[in-house]
Amino acid sequence: MFRFRMLVEYDGTPYVGWQRQDNGHSVQGAIEKAIFAMTGDRVSLKAAGRTDTGVHACGQVCHADLSRDWKAQTLANGVNAHLAMENERVAILEAEKVDETFDARFSATKRHYLYRIVNRLAPTALEAERAWHVKKPLDHEAMHAAAQMLVGHHDFTTFRSSHCQAKNPNRTMERIDVSRVGEVVEIRASAQSFLHNQIRSFAGTLKMVGEGRWTPEDVRDALEAKDRTRCGPVAPPWGLFFLRVDYGDLSELLRFEDDPS
Amino acid sequence: MFRFRMLVEYDGTPYVGWQRQDNGHSVQGAIEKAIFAMTGDRVSLKAAGRTDTGVHACGQVCHADLSRDWKAQTLANGVNAHLAMENERVAILEAEKVDETFDARFSATKRHYLYRIVNRLAPTALEAERAWHVKKPLDHEAMHAAAQMLVGHHDFTTFRSSHCQAKNPNRTMERIDVSRVGEVVEIRASAQSFLHNQIRSFAGTLKMVGEGRWTPEDVRDALEAKDRTRCGPVAPPWGLFFLRVDYGDLSELLRFEDDPS
Repeated sequence: MFRFRMLVEYDGTPYVGWQRQDNGHSVQGAIEKAIFAMTGDRVSLKAAGRTDTGVHACGQVCHADLSRDWKAQTLANGVNAHLAMENERVAILEAEKVDETFDARFSATKRHYLYRIVNRLAPTALEAERAWHVKKPLDHEAMHAAAQMLVGHHDFTTFRSSHCQAKNPNRTMERIDVSRVGEVVEIRASAQSFLHNQIRSFAGTLKMVGEGRWTPEDVRDALEAKDRTRCGPVAPPWGLFFLRVDYGDLSELLRFEDDPS
Repeated sequence: MFRFRMLVEYDGTPYVGWQRQDNGHSVQGAIEKAIFAMTGDRVSLKAAGRTDTGVHACGQVCHADLSRDWKAQTLANGVNAHLAMENERVAILEAEKVDETFDARFSATKRHYLYRIVNRLAPTALEAERAWHVKKPLDHEAMHAAAQMLVGHHDFTTFRSSHCQAKNPNRTMERIDVSRVGEVVEIRASAQSFLHNQIRSFAGTLKMVGEGRWTPEDVRDALEAKDRTRCGPVAPPWGLFFLRVDYGDLSELLRFEDDPS
């Protein structure tokens, strides 16, 4: 067995999400099919983050165990060729042979996400599937101040999906920054791991702050309530981008947290 | 009659281009239909640039004569609502009532275009319809040097489509800049007007320079040859964005040049 790590970009629009499902076309399924077409191996990919329907990735990471010791670039080129043949909106950016102790999910030490909001009165034609369109002017500085209430180690029960399967609702947000680049408000969040729908729950809540309907203190109170019903409306998936995964020194990992995104 | 200027953004992917045609769905047709649905007026839009199939716009400008004196924002909102109902990938960014001497095409004093190249080995999933994918590393500084050969007033016969209907092949390129932002090489061109396929002809030719297959002097020689067969391969439409139109002092305009893009 030879283990390969792959760095993956995808447009989440036509997919039911990362994870293979019985009904619906998944990113995982698309890559597994291309790997089979190229190598003859039926693999089951493991990924750093199980992104939802419509969520994009610039730097998802997954790994696969193959029966042959491929040259990494040959593997990437071949899988890309098969993905292109099927008109998939998925690209392997890099492939690399790794040690069998590497696990795309459990070895990850930090995950980085971006949530994009196009903030203007007019609808967006070019960014329709790449950003959330919010008409009301957003105070991004108030959003940033509110985001700081969420940084650190907390019980994030308020900000996770009721379907979240993680046993433990505690996570450590290393950084949540809100900034504006012209008409686009960007929310950047980094942590070792996230709960299901956590960033979209943050984004929907921070939008309430940006619109002046909530104060930063309301966000702190919602967090402290540990009550899902206190969350703002969950933001749509098409504004979310899985940017990057860091893999640091594995010995630093004391425990495995689960269920990113 | 009340004349309205509209600033328009569109994703060119599903359209046969700006111009209404008997066969195929055009941006012009989509907006005219939305205007009819909202106002009951059957208008024939005039635009600053007749973009080709697949070419995008961040700031196309067009005008329409309507029978009623609409509040400009009401007009924009209503047309956008009808565009959204039809799932068009077109948005009216602004509307403004203008004097009847204003003409979206003939009053334009400068047009600004951007051509985007994603320059990396791996295919692009997120930018597939928003950039030209070029695998070989491009020397953007050589491309910029070559682009300067094209700046100024020249006979651009080499760099226009054989279908170009402009009587005069002379144009004045005010600026053609090539720069790199990470993996993206950007070509920005500004002029009062352009010939048909001129920017895509530039982009395809400059790519040859970036790959080291042509020198900047080859570009100058091709220009001076005034021979369409001396042009590099024409770049694909999906990397091209019509960015912006300037409307200056109309009295400065000595003549009307035609056929942008």
